Amino acid sequence: MPYAAPASEFRFLLDDVLGFDAVTATDRFAEATPETVNAIIAEAARLNDEVIAPLQRAGDTEGARLENGMVRTSPGFADGYRAIAEGGWIGMAGDPAHGGMGLPFTLNAVFNDMISGAALSLGLNPLLTQGQIEALETHASPEMKALYLPKLNSGAWTGTMNLTEPQAGSDVGALTTKAVPNGDGTFAITGQKIYISWGDHDFGGNVCHLVLARLPDAAPGTRGISLFMVPKFIPDEAGEPGARNALRVVSLEHKTGLHGSPTCVMSYEGATGWLVGKEHGGMAAMFTMMNNARLQVGVQGIGVAEGAYQHALAYALERKQGRSPLPDGTGAIVDFADVRRMLTEAKAEIFAARAIALACAMALDMEKATGAPEWSARAALLTPIAKSYGTDMAQKVTGLGVQIHGGMGYIEETGAAQYARDARVLTIYEGTNGIQAMDLVGRKMMDGGEAAFRLCEEIEAEAEAARATMPELAEPVWGAAETLRETVEWLVGQEMQERFAGAVPFQAAFARVLGAFYHLRAARAAGGTGPRQALAAFYIERLLPEHAALIAAARAGAAGLYALSPEDLAS
Amino acid sequence: MPYAAPASEFRFLLDDVLGFDAVTATDRFAEATPETVNAIIAEAARLNDEVIAPLQRAGDTEGARLENGMVRTSPGFADGYRAIAEGGWIGMAGDPAHGGMGLPFTLNAVFNDMISGAALSLGLNPLLTQGQIEALETHASPEMKALYLPKLNSGAWTGTMNLTEPQAGSDVGALTTKAVPNGDGTFAITGQKIYISWGDHDFGGNVCHLVLARLPDAAPGTRGISLFMVPKFIPDEAGEPGARNALRVVSLEHKTGLHGSPTCVMSYEGATGWLVGKEHGGMAAMFTMMNNARLQVGVQGIGVAEGAYQHALAYALERKQGRSPLPDGTGAIVDFADVRRMLTEAKAEIFAARAIALACAMALDMEKATGAPEWSARAALLTPIAKSYGTDMAQKVTGLGVQIHGGMGYIEETGAAQYARDARVLTIYEGTNGIQAMDLVGRKMMDGGEAAFRLCEEIEAEAEAARATMPELAEPVWGAAETLRETVEWLVGQEMQERFAGAVPFQAAFARVLGAFYHLRAARAAGGTGPRQALAAFYIERLLPEHAALIAAARAGAAGLYALSPEDLAS
Repeated sequence: MPYAAPASEFRFLLDDVLGFDAVTATDRFAEATPETVNAIIAEAARLNDEVIAPLQRAGDTEGARLENGMVRTSPGFADGYRAIAEGGWIGMAGDPAHGGMGLPFTLNAVFNDMISGAALSLGLNPLLTQGQIEALETHASPEMKALYLPKLNSGAWTGTMNLTEPQAGSDVGALTTKAVPNGDGTFAITGQKIYISWGDHDFGGNVCHLVLARLPDAAPGTRGISLFMVPKFIPDEAGEPGARNALRVVSLEHKTGLHGSPTCVMSYEGATGWLVGKEHGGMAAMFTMMNNARLQVGVQGIGVAEGAYQHALAYALERKQGRSPLPDGTGAIVDFADVRRMLTEAKAEIFAARAIALACAMALDMEKATGAPEWSARAALLTPIAKSYGTDMAQKVTGLGVQIHGGMGYIEETGAAQYARDARVLTIYEGTNGIQAMDLVGRKMMDGGEAAFRLCEEIEAEAEAARATMPELAEPVWGAAETLRETVEWLVGQEMQERFAGAVPFQAAFARVLGAFYHLRAARAAGGTGPRQALAAFYIERLLPEHAALIAAARAGAAGLYALSPEDLAS
Repeated sequence: MPYAAPASEFRFLLDDVLGFDAVTATDRFAEATPETVNAIIAEAARLNDEVIAPLQRAGDTEGARLENGMVRTSPGFADGYRAIAEGGWIGMAGDPAHGGMGLPFTLNAVFNDMISGAALSLGLNPLLTQGQIEALETHASPEMKALYLPKLNSGAWTGTMNLTEPQAGSDVGALTTKAVPNGDGTFAITGQKIYISWGDHDFGGNVCHLVLARLPDAAPGTRGISLFMVPKFIPDEAGEPGARNALRVVSLEHKTGLHGSPTCVMSYEGATGWLVGKEHGGMAAMFTMMNNARLQVGVQGIGVAEGAYQHALAYALERKQGRSPLPDGTGAIVDFADVRRMLTEAKAEIFAARAIALACAMALDMEKATGAPEWSARAALLTPIAKSYGTDMAQKVTGLGVQIHGGMGYIEETGAAQYARDARVLTIYEGTNGIQAMDLVGRKMMDGGEAAFRLCEEIEAEAEAARATMPELAEPVWGAAETLRETVEWLVGQEMQERFAGAVPFQAAFARVLGAFYHLRAARAAGGTGPRQALAAFYIERLLPEHAALIAAARAGAAGLYALSPEDLAS
């Protein structure tokens, strides 16, 4: 598929909307000078446009297969992977002490956005390795770091996450995979894991599985879970792949989309594993990996939405149908009001979701660089919003992409439907968006709403600043921030079941208000005129009003939600 | 898939919400006594539950194939089709003078709802034949009626609609298929047609194609289009399938879903055709067929949403995950607040869309029975709303069905994704929902909004009647009807381009208000308490508020919509 990474959009967001210079002004990220950042964005764009995007269709039509227990990946994927690894993109945010480049995580998110638009199913592979790098940096022993991190940062080896079992999905505490000490410091891992993305491949090297399992004396539930490194090949004395470990791919799932990404059922049959972090400390280690992964799944949604948008726009600019309603129209369907609406809506949604996700990534960088708890709270608050909005938005925008194509959207050869099918899993994996919402109104409001209130104040300050030049846009944003603040005040006073009842609409309302905030800031940065102002006006006038209905639903209460019994639902 | 047609829901809607007795009180439909109607609903339910629903999965996994120019349908489809035909379901609304049963169209819609939930891809076949019966009854010569209608009503032969060509989709006037007089009263039809659903099959009998084409002296655009009957086999003296006509299936489309329904590229190569209706009168004839078809596509959406809902509910009642948040919970995921929200939302949406669609079908019956222009205007107004809401709702509800399944929703074997993939085309075919919206704010407002105002008055009267017992539900419905009335007043004063700019959100807002109206009436019919009241409260408190944001978008204007140029969209 033709894809052009929106390099100037990223630069505008970082420089003019989000104030990325705060990150590069820290000691930790001092090497990421403006010139370096621009060069990185340009090179990432080149790689994704020229090397990765051409792999998009094969990742659907010629998906990964299991042959004699070995995974065969889509044509071209191995070469594409090699280009990613050789470009240093996998270890870009890794610790330089172990072969990483030490760049801000925000740039990693930019790369992930691009590769998700170019070929989502391949892009998922480096994302998993990056999550593993983060987990090992935080929790592994010095020896394990020295052995694995250089291989992972270079992309010679890849990483996976093994959490889910058939009976243990959202309830990870129900897992039963066993880890029995071998007496030599290693453990024998036995159990079955499902939904293991990129659980095997034919890219060479090693596949390093991080597996959640229970020690013999473990408590029930999440408190009794430990994390183990279980490599496909046991490293030899020289640290190279040695003997085959006792694990195998049982089967690949037959999925609605993302065919290029092998989703494996893995069987561990007394496989040799090494403990990562403390005994029974598996959940803490896994959370390190999951938090960034959640944000990055939101970013995947943004990338795939961008791909679908570009694809639909190209069609709308080319497809002739009927007489243009515009005196000076193009003659193509982009002239029709509702086609224009769909395209503009897609663009406005992508901008908003991208701004939120990059703001979250920046907060993670600032947390790392300064250690300030405000940044950590900001990142924690934004993570579920970025994940859920980026992926809900991806459903909507990839759906619009199909709709803009008309009948051709339903014909697989155009590729429009692939974006929608690929994106479909994003609201589900790494914690469904319902789970994200429970996290938002639960854990993320343990501060009594403090982090949320700080954000509302920032939005109101932005609205104040914009009031002089753009009162018609500033006023509704100010009002929406007020409504949000009041809702948070109400929320933190409620019992948990009451919060959960309104969690999903609350999460969506929060995203709507934040999206309007960043649009307003973008319009102001652009001088209050031109396409940035027009896009902001579209979002604020036509999409922001949804926040009121969402807030109404968020506050409607648990009683009404449970008023129909399971029997009533079935009758 | 297990599917249980919601027979009691249909009876409640017809008897207690919509006043179907007005239809059966007419001379025309006097034979449809309450006992007859109940027996028909029960028998339709039995057929769909027992015979059709078991075909659902094969219609996806073993889709129709083209072999040596012949279409081979999914396993079991031929037997299923025979059961439908032998039960008399195809000709149920057909004129008894030609072998139909003369039943109200509303019951046809009920049957279509059921079969769409049981196996959408097979259900599309009789729907097309029914549309053809309607077109022939209205426009064909007595000889053509005598020859074709008995065979179509009995299901011995099937019918198709041939409108689209590669360059002529929404702009049907751009079609170029030629019809040249043969000198013997017949015409030689030459051209290529695409997206021909059920263009061929292996059910036996004949395939009767209604084909739009141009006579040699035809004017450009839609005014120069004529309609022709072009059968696969030319009927012999005895009226049985005779010589093979010069037409063939070139290929089948590779679609996102609906694999059991062969979507054909048809080639007419001097095929023998017979004029239907007047020369250059093809569009009028086609519209007869299309109007009912549009409503029925809305009904397809409702049926497939019902199927997805039942499927997801069964999963939610069975799947255990984590500790129930309810002291007396089932222990399954149905106990979790957001799962309960998704299920209740799905049920509330299906009820609302079904009420609107059946109200539209009833208006068509009343129009036929009484000839009163109010009924004709009511049906005309409701058709685009029923089509768009039923199918947009189907996207949403089938999406919720996947989401409720969590990771299992993305695994094709569960069947959850099939509903979503099958439903995907519904917002596109028979006129995209954007086209429906243009029809609603254009043609359907040529009466200065009169039909819409009459509906608003009915809603307000219902709200007045409900105020005493359910003020908290009646008040918002009354207010929403007022807002809708004001918006229609505003709309009819606008230039067409301004109307088109807000057409899609206006259409959705109209549906939201109507949905609330029928929910309120249902709650009142149920005495203002119990599950009907609870479902109405859910809809009115949590979904109706969306109308305000939709109205804001509808009135935001064309200027803002076109503020970003195609170049801006691309940059």
